[in-house]
Amino acid sequence: MATFKRIVLASRPKGEVVPENFRLEDVPVPALKDGEILIRNHYLSLDPYMRMRMEDVKSYAAPQPIGETMIGGTVGEVIESKNPKFTVGDKVQGMLGWSEMGVSDGVMLRKLDTTHIPLSAYLGAVGMPGMTAWYGLTQIMQPKEGETIVVSAASGAVGSVVGQLAKLRGCRAVGIAGGKEKCDYVVNELGFDACIDYKAGNLPADLAKATPNGIDAVFENVGGEGFDACLARMNPFGRIALCGLIAGYDGQPMPINNVRAFLTMRLTMRGFIVSEHMELWPQGLRELGTLVAAGRLKFRESIADGLASAPDAFIGLLKGRNFGKQLVKLA
Amino acid sequence: MATFKRIVLASRPKGEVVPENFRLEDVPVPALKDGEILIRNHYLSLDPYMRMRMEDVKSYAAPQPIGETMIGGTVGEVIESKNPKFTVGDKVQGMLGWSEMGVSDGVMLRKLDTTHIPLSAYLGAVGMPGMTAWYGLTQIMQPKEGETIVVSAASGAVGSVVGQLAKLRGCRAVGIAGGKEKCDYVVNELGFDACIDYKAGNLPADLAKATPNGIDAVFENVGGEGFDACLARMNPFGRIALCGLIAGYDGQPMPINNVRAFLTMRLTMRGFIVSEHMELWPQGLRELGTLVAAGRLKFRESIADGLASAPDAFIGLLKGRNFGKQLVKLA
Repeated sequence: MATFKRIVLASRPKGEVVPENFRLEDVPVPALKDGEILIRNHYLSLDPYMRMRMEDVKSYAAPQPIGETMIGGTVGEVIESKNPKFTVGDKVQGMLGWSEMGVSDGVMLRKLDTTHIPLSAYLGAVGMPGMTAWYGLTQIMQPKEGETIVVSAASGAVGSVVGQLAKLRGCRAVGIAGGKEKCDYVVNELGFDACIDYKAGNLPADLAKATPNGIDAVFENVGGEGFDACLARMNPFGRIALCGLIAGYDGQPMPINNVRAFLTMRLTMRGFIVSEHMELWPQGLRELGTLVAAGRLKFRESIADGLASAPDAFIGLLKGRNFGKQLVKLA
Repeated sequence: MATFKRIVLASRPKGEVVPENFRLEDVPVPALKDGEILIRNHYLSLDPYMRMRMEDVKSYAAPQPIGETMIGGTVGEVIESKNPKFTVGDKVQGMLGWSEMGVSDGVMLRKLDTTHIPLSAYLGAVGMPGMTAWYGLTQIMQPKEGETIVVSAASGAVGSVVGQLAKLRGCRAVGIAGGKEKCDYVVNELGFDACIDYKAGNLPADLAKATPNGIDAVFENVGGEGFDACLARMNPFGRIALCGLIAGYDGQPMPINNVRAFLTMRLTMRGFIVSEHMELWPQGLRELGTLVAAGRLKFRESIADGLASAPDAFIGLLKGRNFGKQLVKLA
């Protein structure tokens, strides 16, 4: 019997995620029913949101069930189809999880055109991370030309797009990232105006230097001290798109200390989940796809090899060891 | 030479405000120039925002200068006029400060109709506090019928209006206040559905009981633990109007610990200053004035007697010793 490999959640993390929270399994390739499609996944996307799904707490989504395939976005190729809308060889994007293969009824499966855009980009700049950046920037931060925006985790899949889109809109874009190599990349390759290395230990002073006119909008992926440093530099009526709090995903206390800034500067902060705003995806993906195809929106990928490497790659992502979009190559 | 009394800022507070931060002075009644009006103030409004003005920090307004009349809203009567738009005997509202008299050029002076609305109400429910409540509720919280709203400092000049306006819009209104007497007033007189006494020491459990369907919108005047307790009960897409942080005005650390709720529940929080939205005042004051005149919007006043009592009354306000709108009767 033909089988494929998948990774299930074995246990919920207590603090930091460890490899033992996952289990690699062999499962039989299922027979398709009418309307179904069998997909071989080429790439799996690893994203910080998965950390929150591993917990059993009140959140925007049901927790990842124990013993089931870990949730995750995938791109791949149709290898068998009993659905008239899909043909063997079609490149598709879906949510087939940490798995070498998957079955879909076609409803949430998107056909991809890889003529000008590489397949893996549909998990990054032209996929959910890109849309997350696009949504936060255009719908929440709404920066005007000449304004200063700051984005944390600036070299990552989301942050890198936020800053580049802001530059295209005539803003001053300042990133925060960990380490000189990432910061150099953010400035020299992505074209940000400045990038602050939070590991250098001078975040508030470095941020002040990089934002001489204050900060008009923040895209926050991390939380904690870096976020408080941004709050202290906000201009009146500043906007904050709260996308992630990766600094606190293991349960570390991560308060906002500078609450007064919200009042004195009349700030607006909004937490958001991009998948709740599907009506805007066509518009956003059109912009992102056009920019990537034209080489005007750059991205970088960290690619782990083989499904078995996914847990370590995911743990590395949570610790900031990745550089750019974290993917797992499956086929 | 005729004189009147005023209170100036003598020094900036270090931590808690003390009486020595103020100085009572006698000053000569000035001769009017063309276009000016002399007003005898009947009531001075004491408001928490004054505490922030006493500090010399970056904020939405210039700090209160040392040695000058403390800022403050007043209502009174024209006693001399060299301005054709104002006549002796006119009742007026202005920002003439902690002072028995004041001179105005008429620009920021509002003539008042006291036929159906008592003069002092123009410093409360039909003045800046009422507008603050109206703005936060209608523009930021935007509650729908059947939703649950929570307001802290619920028996105060602002909070009492927030809850009553929410009830008129078909919401469940829950207050937070200090002490049984205030809570009884909030429920029995103002008509809130429930009021939690934070001094009773069971805030999170009491709040859970009072908000069985969670919280859809919060009007926050206080900050600190009560605010975190609200955040833990928020429903998806909840809105927070951040109006004040009285718990931290003396420099106490007052973090938001439950930052994650903003993300998981996709909350929106906005700090605001009602005086920056003057274009909405006519609409808001029309609703507030109509309700007060009809007896459908209730309020309560704590009235200190004489200008010399203002510093103690203000310190009491910051400690929550007032009950309802804190005024000082001047004439």
